Order: sequence, then structure tokens, then C-alpha cells
Amino acid sequence: MPRGRKRVENPATARRILAAAEEHFAAQGIEGATTDQIAMAARANKAMLYYYFGDKRRLHRAVLENLLRQLRTGVYAHFKKDASPRENLRSFIADYFEFLATHPNYPRLVHREAMEKTRNFDWIVRQYLRPFHHQLTRTIEGAIAAGEFRRVNPHHTAFTIIGMITSYFAAAPILGEIAGRNLLSPAAIDERKQSVLDFIDHGLMPSSARSR
Amino acid sequence: MPRGRKRVENPATARRILAAAEEHFAAQGIEGATTDQIAMAARANKAMLYYYFGDKRRLHRAVLENLLRQLRTGVYAHFKKDASPRENLRSFIADYFEFLATHPNYPRLVHREAMEKTRNFDWIVRQYLRPFHHQLTRTIEGAIAAGEFRRVNPHHTAFTIIGMITSYFAAAPILGEIAGRNLLSPAAIDERKQSVLDFIDHGLMPSSARSR
Repeated sequence: MPRGRKRVENPATARRILAAAEEHFAAQGIEGATTDQIAMAARANKAMLYYYFGDKRRLHRAVLENLLRQLRTGVYAHFKKDASPRENLRSFIADYFEFLATHPNYPRLVHREAMEKTRNFDWIVRQYLRPFHHQLTRTIEGAIAAGEFRRVNPHHTAFTIIGMITSYFAAAPILGEIAGRNLLSPAAIDERKQSVLDFIDHGLMPSSARSR
Repeated sequence: MPRGRKRVENPATARRILAAAEEHFAAQGIEGATTDQIAMAARANKAMLYYYFGDKRRLHRAVLENLLRQLRTGVYAHFKKDASPRENLRSFIADYFEFLATHPNYPRLVHREAMEKTRNFDWIVRQYLRPFHHQLTRTIEGAIAAGEFRRVNPHHTAFTIIGMITSYFAAAPILGEIAGRNLLSPAAIDERKQSVLDFIDHGLMPSSARSR
């Protein structure tokens, strides 16, 4: 929970403010979005917004933390000790697709932080992205050790897997215009997921399995 | 050249304004950046900025067009009729790496347009990104027809190749923090390029070549 956030007497109002803030910050950035617009969209008054969240920067941080916590519990907490590394990676990819399909603001908000190297940067990396990356590289290393994958650089492979998926969702508006169809429909997302799984399978396949 | 742009009497001043505008729009977006800051950074006065570029929106469009034209001449104009599709794709990847390494503002600016679905969107897609995408898919189709690549979906493969490269540069600040080193050094960029070429080679390799 962000520093300075007060105890919430009316969780429904706080949730509406958080949801409206997520939309506005994703669409317009922290500079472009105003607390007036956010409060109006949340059918709350501005005093309540300040009461619950402190100020615009803290509200913005609460939005990011809310999404990153959901990414942790919905995607990264699912790695299983009794599954093979390759199975864990495939489940991770499916879960990450599901997360991005249901949280379209996530790549927009986090890309903004990345591009602008904001003050949020440090804690996002330290508390969330670095542990996520290490979990992924450990899994890839495990798959190499188990002979499931050929010997690749685990860090670049992790960047590639995340990049193939995140960039699709982040760029879906442009890619959809290019392709002339909605690339965020359930069927299109599933097609993309199969394409990524297929590409990764072939890209990481050990030489011993190449005659399959 | 953007509509309404005047004949330029002092090209050096116009170039300085364009360069300063690129930096400011990339860092802060069109809402966050001000013509005051841009004129000051360019050592020009605001009247000259308006005289050369019209207004902030037109200056922003001129920045985007300048980058997209360079992407066309520096990367997409290099496809050769007498080279094999696979060779063309490998040269394209090398040229696109070179372009992004020397134009760090490009992914930041174009991602913003994509994420915000701005008014610039239509002409960027129509005049630049759609022709670029078709050139890439035709090349991938050519490589499949020539037996250089296995049968993959050319559209998804194009999205994947662009995504693997662009997302690396767009996210380099965050990825660098995660990895604990500068991922935009010449050595790091070259390592990334080799990793992408290797991954694509394996991911697209036809089954007949898998025993190599």
C-alpha cells in the first residue's frame, strides 16, 4: 500500500477512483491526466480522492502497485515446483497472455515509466520486475539443464519472451490498423499465443529434438 | 513536409528546433513538452519556432515524419532484389538495430502514438508502417516459398521480429536496471543482435535443415 494512504472507509469509492485513475493515467500519462477528470469519471469528489490517495503522484503509484501485485499473484506465483521448467514456461506464457488481455492498461502504464525513467522506476524494478526476471531466467536455466531447451542466453531469452508478448499488446492499436482487423479479440489473442508458443518451441528446441 | 510549414530561411535553426523538439516530445509527450522549453533548448526564440513549424502539433508531426523518413531510407529501402529473402531479412535486422541504436527517441515517440491512438495514427500507419509491414511479410513469404523458412504465419512472424527488437530498445532503461548493466552500449547491442538472429534462425529453420 502506498505511503500516506489512509484507511479506506468506503472501499467501493476507492476502487472506482483507482479504476478511473488507471484509465486516465494510461491514456494521458501523469502529466496529461487531471484529478478533476479522474474524480468525475469515478463519480467521487476531489476531496475524497485526496483523502484516500494523498495526491496525484500517490494515486498514480497506487495504480501501478495494484497492477503489479495482480501480475505477481496471477502470473508469477503460478510457477510449480513439481512441473518441468518447459511446462512452467508454457503456463507462464498462457497466464501472461491472460493477464495482458484482461489488463490492457498495464503495458501502457509500465512502458511510460520505462520510457520516461520516472521516480517510480526504482521500486518497480526492485520489488517487482527484477524478481520476475530472475524467476524467468531460473526457469530457462532449468529447462537448459534438463535438456528441454538448447543452450541459449537465459537473460536475452527472457527479454525476448516478454518482448514478443508485451509488445503485441502495447502495439495492438497500431498493429490492428496495419493488419486491418481487431488484434485484441479473443480469437486473435489465442492465435497470437499459439504463434508465440510455436516460435519459442522451435527457437529453443534442443538439437537432439530437431528431427521431431 | 508537414502542411503549413514555411520555406526555411535558416535551415540550421530549423534543424536545432527539430532536434530539441524530438528530445522533449520523447521525454515528456506532446502534452508535457512546451514550446518555451523547446525553443530555449534549441537556442531559438518561440516566434521562429512558430514561423518554421506552425504550432506545437505541427512541430510534433514534423518530428515524427523526420524519423519515419529516416527509417524508410535507412532500413526499408535497403531490401535487394538480387539477395535471397533470408539474406534480406538478416540485413534488415542489422539495419533496424543500427537505426534504433542511433535514434533512441523513435520507439518512445511511436509507442506514445500507438498507446494514445492519436490523430497522427492514421497517416503514420498509411504512409509508413503498413508499407513497411507488407515489405516484411512479402520477404518472409518469399523465404518460405524458397524453402529458407518453415511454414509460419508471415504476419505474426513480422510482428514478432519487430517486437523482439523494438521492445528491447524501448524497454532498455528498465531492462538495464534489471540486468544491472547498460544494455545500450555498442557491445550490449551487438550481443542482443546476435541473440535475435540466433533465435530467429532457430525459430524459422525449416525441418529439412534441423539436422545441421
